[in-house]
Amino acid sequence: MSASLRSGNEYPIPETMRAWVLGGPEELSLVEKPVPEPGPAEVLVRIDAVAICATDLEIIRHGLPASIEGELPFNKGYTPGHEYMGTVVKLGPSVDEYQLGDRIAVEIHAGCGRCRRCREGMYTSCLNYGFPSKGHRANGFSTDGGFAEYAVNHVNTMVHVPDDITDEEATLIVTAGTAMYGLDVLGGIIAGEGVVVIGPGPIGLMGVGVAKALGAQPVILTGTRDRRLEMGKRLGADAVVNVNHEDAVAAVQRLTGGRGVQYVLECSGAPNALNEAARMVNRGGRICLAAFPHEPVSVDLAYIVRNNIYVFGIRGEGQSATHRAAALMGQRRFDAKLIHTHTFPLVELPAALRYARDRVEDAIKVVVKMRGS
Amino acid sequence: MSASLRSGNEYPIPETMRAWVLGGPEELSLVEKPVPEPGPAEVLVRIDAVAICATDLEIIRHGLPASIEGELPFNKGYTPGHEYMGTVVKLGPSVDEYQLGDRIAVEIHAGCGRCRRCREGMYTSCLNYGFPSKGHRANGFSTDGGFAEYAVNHVNTMVHVPDDITDEEATLIVTAGTAMYGLDVLGGIIAGEGVVVIGPGPIGLMGVGVAKALGAQPVILTGTRDRRLEMGKRLGADAVVNVNHEDAVAAVQRLTGGRGVQYVLECSGAPNALNEAARMVNRGGRICLAAFPHEPVSVDLAYIVRNNIYVFGIRGEGQSATHRAAALMGQRRFDAKLIHTHTFPLVELPAALRYARDRVEDAIKVVVKMRGS
Amino acid sequence: MSASLRSGNEYPIPETMRAWVLGGPEELSLVEKPVPEPGPAEVLVRIDAVAICATDLEIIRHGLPASIEGELPFNKGYTPGHEYMGTVVKLGPSVDEYQLGDRIAVEIHAGCGRCRRCREGMYTSCLNYGFPSKGHRANGFSTDGGFAEYAVNHVNTMVHVPDDITDEEATLIVTAGTAMYGLDVLGGIIAGEGVVVIGPGPIGLMGVGVAKALGAQPVILTGTRDRRLEMGKRLGADAVVNVNHEDAVAAVQRLTGGRGVQYVLECSGAPNALNEAARMVNRGGRICLAAFPHEPVSVDLAYIVRNNIYVFGIRGEGQSATHRAAALMGQRRFDAKLIHTHTFPLVELPAALRYARDRVEDAIKVVVKMRGS
Amino acid sequence: MSASLRSGNEYPIPETMRAWVLGGPEELSLVEKPVPEPGPAEVLVRIDAVAICATDLEIIRHGLPASIEGELPFNKGYTPGHEYMGTVVKLGPSVDEYQLGDRIAVEIHAGCGRCRRCREGMYTSCLNYGFPSKGHRANGFSTDGGFAEYAVNHVNTMVHVPDDITDEEATLIVTAGTAMYGLDVLGGIIAGEGVVVIGPGPIGLMGVGVAKALGAQPVILTGTRDRRLEMGKRLGADAVVNVNHEDAVAAVQRLTGGRGVQYVLECSGAPNALNEAARMVNRGGRICLAAFPHEPVSVDLAYIVRNNIYVFGIRGEGQSATHRAAALMGQRRFDAKLIHTHTFPLVELPAALRYARDRVEDAIKVVVKMRGS
Repeated sequence: MSASLRSGNEYPIPETMRAWVLGGPEELSLVEKPVPEPGPAEVLVRIDAVAICATDLEIIRHGLPASIEGELPFNKGYTPGHEYMGTVVKLGPSVDEYQLGDRIAVEIHAGCGRCRRCREGMYTSCLNYGFPSKGHRANGFSTDGGFAEYAVNHVNTMVHVPDDITDEEATLIVTAGTAMYGLDVLGGIIAGEGVVVIGPGPIGLMGVGVAKALGAQPVILTGTRDRRLEMGKRLGADAVVNVNHEDAVAAVQRLTGGRGVQYVLECSGAPNALNEAARMVNRGGRICLAAFPHEPVSVDLAYIVRNNIYVFGIRGEGQSATHRAAALMGQRRFDAKLIHTHTFPLVELPAALRYARDRVEDAIKVVVKMRGS
Repeated sequence: MSASLRSGNEYPIPETMRAWVLGGPEELSLVEKPVPEPGPAEVLVRIDAVAICATDLEIIRHGLPASIEGELPFNKGYTPGHEYMGTVVKLGPSVDEYQLGDRIAVEIHAGCGRCRRCREGMYTSCLNYGFPSKGHRANGFSTDGGFAEYAVNHVNTMVHVPDDITDEEATLIVTAGTAMYGLDVLGGIIAGEGVVVIGPGPIGLMGVGVAKALGAQPVILTGTRDRRLEMGKRLGADAVVNVNHEDAVAAVQRLTGGRGVQYVLECSGAPNALNEAARMVNRGGRICLAAFPHEPVSVDLAYIVRNNIYVFGIRGEGQSATHRAAALMGQRRFDAKLIHTHTFPLVELPAALRYARDRVEDAIKVVVKMRGS
Repeated sequence: MSASLRSGNEYPIPETMRAWVLGGPEELSLVEKPVPEPGPAEVLVRIDAVAICATDLEIIRHGLPASIEGELPFNKGYTPGHEYMGTVVKLGPSVDEYQLGDRIAVEIHAGCGRCRRCREGMYTSCLNYGFPSKGHRANGFSTDGGFAEYAVNHVNTMVHVPDDITDEEATLIVTAGTAMYGLDVLGGIIAGEGVVVIGPGPIGLMGVGVAKALGAQPVILTGTRDRRLEMGKRLGADAVVNVNHEDAVAAVQRLTGGRGVQYVLECSGAPNALNEAARMVNRGGRICLAAFPHEPVSVDLAYIVRNNIYVFGIRGEGQSATHRAAALMGQRRFDAKLIHTHTFPLVELPAALRYARDRVEDAIKVVVKMRGS
Repeated sequence: MSASLRSGNEYPIPETMRAWVLGGPEELSLVEKPVPEPGPAEVLVRIDAVAICATDLEIIRHGLPASIEGELPFNKGYTPGHEYMGTVVKLGPSVDEYQLGDRIAVEIHAGCGRCRRCREGMYTSCLNYGFPSKGHRANGFSTDGGFAEYAVNHVNTMVHVPDDITDEEATLIVTAGTAMYGLDVLGGIIAGEGVVVIGPGPIGLMGVGVAKALGAQPVILTGTRDRRLEMGKRLGADAVVNVNHEDAVAAVQRLTGGRGVQYVLECSGAPNALNEAARMVNRGGRICLAAFPHEPVSVDLAYIVRNNIYVFGIRGEGQSATHRAAALMGQRRFDAKLIHTHTFPLVELPAALRYARDRVEDAIKVVVKMRGS
C-alpha cells in the first residue's frame, strides 16, 4: 500500500518512519524503517512525545529487566521507549474504542488475554510475558516502543489524554499510573492514612501526588536531594525527610507521634529500604516495592513476620491504574509537569539519554518531542 | 469466696490450682496459685490438655518473640503455654456464648477491640499488643497460659470442640488454625490450585491437611526428614520432596510441568526459604511466611518485584481461622491426630518440653494431659 | 461525687444536665438528669453541637428503625440524637486515645467487639445490636444520644475534629462518613469512574462531595429540587439531573455516552430507585443502598442477575469511614458547611425538629448549638 | 480444504457435520453444515456429550435471556447448547495450552479481552457481550453451541476433564462451576459457615456439593420435591427442608439455633426467594442470586438495608470457577453423577428436550451422547 492510497484522511501515513534501533549494548542508531500496521484491536499511534525512564537506560545497557529467557534485545532492529503519547492515526480491524485524531497516552502491558493471570485481571503478571505470538505485548520492552515516529498499540494499552494536558505532561501519565497501582495494591482506600514514599524519583514523586490527591495524611517523602524533596512538597507532601541529615525511620516515627504509618511506597531500590519501610509501618502495615536493589540484600524477615507486614512487589502499572491517574491529572489534582525538566528533539535522543542518566542540570524527567515548539 | 460457695454447680472450683510458672530463663516451677476469676466477656476454663509449641520453648528460653518493648516474662509468676483445650467451668458477667461444660479449644489473640487494627478485624495485629489494661490478651504470651489447671479466656479466643475430637487432637485446632490463616491471607480460594508447603513441622503438616481439604492440587510438601514427609502424605500431600536429595525449586518445577504453583506456605524459617519460594510460584504468585529465620538473611528482592510476587508475614492465627480449622477437623477432612506423638502428665512438663525440643523418639507434637486416660 | 470535687480540672462537670427525653411518640421533654459516668474505654463528651437526621425524626415518631426485637424507646427516659460533636471532658479507665479538651465528632456504632461480625471488622452489623450488656452501643439509637449537654462515648465511636472545622460543620462528619462508607463498600477505588448519587439529601450531598474528592468522574446527582441540585454542583457534581424534567436513566445514559456508570449510591429511598440504578450502571456495576422505601417495592431482579449487578445494603457508617471523611473535610476537599442551613439553641429542639421535618425555609441540615456563637 | 487433506492425524475431520439449528421459536432441525475452523487461540472440539440446561429451553422458546439488543437467534442457522464436553481434534494458530486428544469440558464465556470488565477479570460481565467481532463468545448463547458434532472454543472457555470422570459427568463441570462461582462471589472462604441453597435444580444441587466440599456447615437445602431433596442429602446437605411442609425461614432459624446462616445461594427463581433469603442470613449476611423470577417481584429493601445485607447477581460461571469445580470433581469430593438421569443420542434431541422440560420420569439432568455406549 502506498502513502498516497492511505492519505485519504487527515492523517496521511508515510511508508517509512524514523526510528531509533538498538544494536549492541548502548548502540542506538536512527534509521528509516517501515511504519507498522495495526492488527485487530490495535491502532497506529503517531508519537508526539516520549519520556525517558530509568528502565530505558537499563534496557539499552543491559537488556530487559525481566527474565525473558534467553532473549536479549540487541541487534534485532528493536526500538525501545515506553513512556510515550501521541495521536491515533489509523484503526485496526474492529476498533471503535478510539477514533482518528484521539490524543492518547500509553500503558505498557497488553497481556495475552488467555493465561490464568490475564484471565483474572492481573495482566502485568501475564504468564506469556515476552511471547507476542500468544498475544502479549509490552511496548518498549518485548515489542517495539516509542523512540520512533509511529508505534502500534493494542487498545488495552491506551488511555485518552484529558484536555488541557500538554504532550509533555501526558508522557507522565504512565509514570503516575505506576504510582497509582502501587497504592492500589496496598488497598487503595487511603484517605486519612499515613503514607511514606521512599525515593523522590519520578515514580516516587508521582506517588506523592497521587497519595495526596486521594486524601492520604500525612504523606511523607524521604530522599537525599533537597531539590527533589522540595518538588515533593509542591506535589503535596506534608513532610519531607532528607536522610542525609536524619534517620528515615526516626523521622517517620517523630512525624507520626510514634505511631508509624499504614503504608510505604518504596521507589528507591536502596539496599536497606525494605528493612526501613518495615519499621516505618505499624503492626499490620503494608509495603509496596516499586523498585529494587540489583543485588540480593539483607532483610530482617523476623521483623516482617512478627509484625504481620505484607510486602507487594509490582512491575509497572496494572489494573487500569493509568486510567485513574489520567483522571486525577485531568482534574488537576497534582501538577505532574513539575517533574518535567528538559526537552529534546527526536534526533537528539542520545543527548536526552545522557541528561537522564547523568542527571545533567538536575534533570528529572527528560522528554523527547517529535515536532515543533 | 470459698470453694464451698462456688461449688453449687457440677464444676466445683478450688481456691488454688497447680500451675507452672517461669522464673528466670529455663526455670520452670510447679506452684500452687489462685484460680483466676473471669471478668466480663470471659470464662474460666478447666484445662484438659495442652500441647507444646516451638514458640513455648522460645519464650521459656528467651522471652517473648514479639517485641513487647522492655518486657520480659521472667520472674513475674507468669505461666506459659498457649495450645490448650478444656472445659468451661465458670462464666464471667454477660457471657452467653458458651455454657458450663462446653468443651473448647483456644486461639491465642484477643485484640484490644479498640485500636485501628482490631476495629478492622485484624486482631492479631493489635496495636495494643501486650497491654492487658487496654484489653489485649495473648494467652501464654502476654498473659497467663495453659501449663496450669485453669485459665481465663476471653470469649473471642475460644472455639467449640467438635464431637468425637479427643482432647489431644483438640489441642491441634489452634495449630491448624494458623495454617488455615496462612492460606486465608493468600486468598483462600485454592481449590485446584498448586500449593507448596515448606517445612513439615506441626504448622506445615496442618497446612498440608487444610490445603488438601480445601481442594488444592497439587499440594507439595518439602522437608528434610522422610518420616515427616511420609506423615505429610498421609495428611493429603500429593507429592513430597526431600530437599536433601533434590533441589526444592527444581522438584516443584518438575512436579508442575514447569509452571510452578500459585501459593507457597513457608513454615520452615530456613534462611533461603523466601528465595526458593519466589522461584516456586509463577509470576504473580503469593507467599505466606508463617516462620522466619532469626537473623537477617539475603533476599533477592529484584526477583520478587520483577515477578509481581506478594509476601505476607503472619504471626499466629487470625480472622477466626481457628473456627474454620475446627470445622474441617470435625468433618474429618484430615487426621490431625497423626502429628500427636507423645503424652505426659502435668507434673512432667519438663520432660515433655525436652521431648519437644530435642525431638526425642521423633516427637512432633507433645501433649500434656491433665487427667487420667 | 459533687461538682466541686470533680472540678479540679478545667472542665468542671456538674452533677446533672439538661437533656431531652422521649416519652411517648413525638413527646419530648427537656429534663434535668444525671451526667453519665464513662466506663472503661469510654469518655464523657460535653456536647457542643448536634445535627438533626431524618432518622431522628423517625425514632421520635415510630421508634427504632432497626428491628430490635420488642424494644421501643418510648417512656424509658431515653435521649435521642446521634449526629453530635463536642469536647472530651472526662476520661474513663484506660483511655489514652483522647485527652481532656480534645474536640471530637462521633460515629454511631460501637460494636460489642465479641460477635462474629465485630470480630471480622463489620461492627455496624454487630450481632448483639441493641444489647448494651454485651458491649454494643449505638448512641442515639439503642443508648442515650446527643440532644443533651453531655454524653458518654466509647473511644471506638469518636474521631478528632480537624482544626478550622467549626462545631456546626463537625456535626456533618458522621454524615460524610456514611457517604464515604457507601463508596467503600462499592470498592473504594473510584478515581476516574462514573458515580451517580440518587437523592440530594444530606447523605447524598456528602456522597457527591466525597466521590469527587476521591476523583470520581463524572459524578452525577439526581433529584427533584433545583436548589439542592445546585448545592450538589457546588459540592463537586459534574452534572445534575432534575428527574421532574428528564428521565433519570435516560439522562445518565446521555451524560455517559450510553456507557452508564460503574457505581450508584442510592440515597433517596424512592420506590423505583433500585430499578433505575440497575439501568444506570453498566454490566457488572455496583449499587449501594444507603436509603430504602418503607414498604416492599417491585424490583426487576432478572435485570440485576442477567447483568451481574451487586447490591450492597448499608446502615450507617462503618469500617472507620468517619475518620476518612474527617480527613477529607480537614483537607478542605469539599465544603460540607454548604448543607448546614439553620441553627437553634438546645431549648428550641422542637422548633429545630420541625424545621428539619417540614423543610421550613428549605432547611437541609438543622443544627442545635449548646452554647452561644 | 478437503477432508482427506485434513486427515493426516488420528482425528480425521470431515468437511461437514450434523448439527441442530434453530429456525423459529421451538423449531429445531437436524442439518448438515460445515465443520467450523478454529482461529487464533481457538481449538476445534469434537463434542462427545452435551447436557440440557433450563436456559437452553428458554433460548429455544424465547431467544436469549440476556438483553442483546435487537438480536434474536431465530432463523440464523444458529446451534444452541452450552453444557458440552469433548475431545480436542484441531488446534488453531498459537495454541499450546491444549493438545490433540485432550478431553475437555467448557465454560460458556470468552470475554472480548478488551473492555473494562474483561480487563479487570470480570469476563462474564463483558461489555461487548454479543459482539463476536470484538472477540466476545458465549457459546450456545451468542455463538454456535454444542447440539452438534463439532464446535470451536476459545482456549479461555475450556478446562481439562480429570481422569475417571465420564463424559456424562463431565457435562456437569460447567454446572458445578456456576455453583462454585456463586460461592466465590459470596466470599469463597466458607469452611465452618452456614450456607442455605434455595432450589434443588442442577445448579442448586451442585451448590450443595461444592459448599460441603469446601467445608461449609451446616449446608441446608430447601425445595419442594422430596426426591430432589434426598439427592441433596447424598450430595452433602446436612439438612433439607421441604417448604411444602415447613416455612423455609422458620426451618433455617430452627436448624441454626436462631442464628441464621452467613450465606444463601438462591437457585430457585421463586418470587419470594430474596425476601426469604434475607431472613435466613444473619445481620451482615450475603446472598447470591443465581436464578431469578421472570417478572418483577415485591422486595422488602428496608430489611436488606437495615441488616447490611449484600446481594450478588450472577450470570453463569466466572473467575475460572469451572477449573475449581473440575478439580473438586476430579478429587471425588461430591458425586455429580447423581443428578444425571437420562441419556439420548443426538438424533433424539427433541425427546431429550421434552424430558428436561417436562421432567419426564423425574428427569434432572438429561444428556445427549454423540457416540455409542
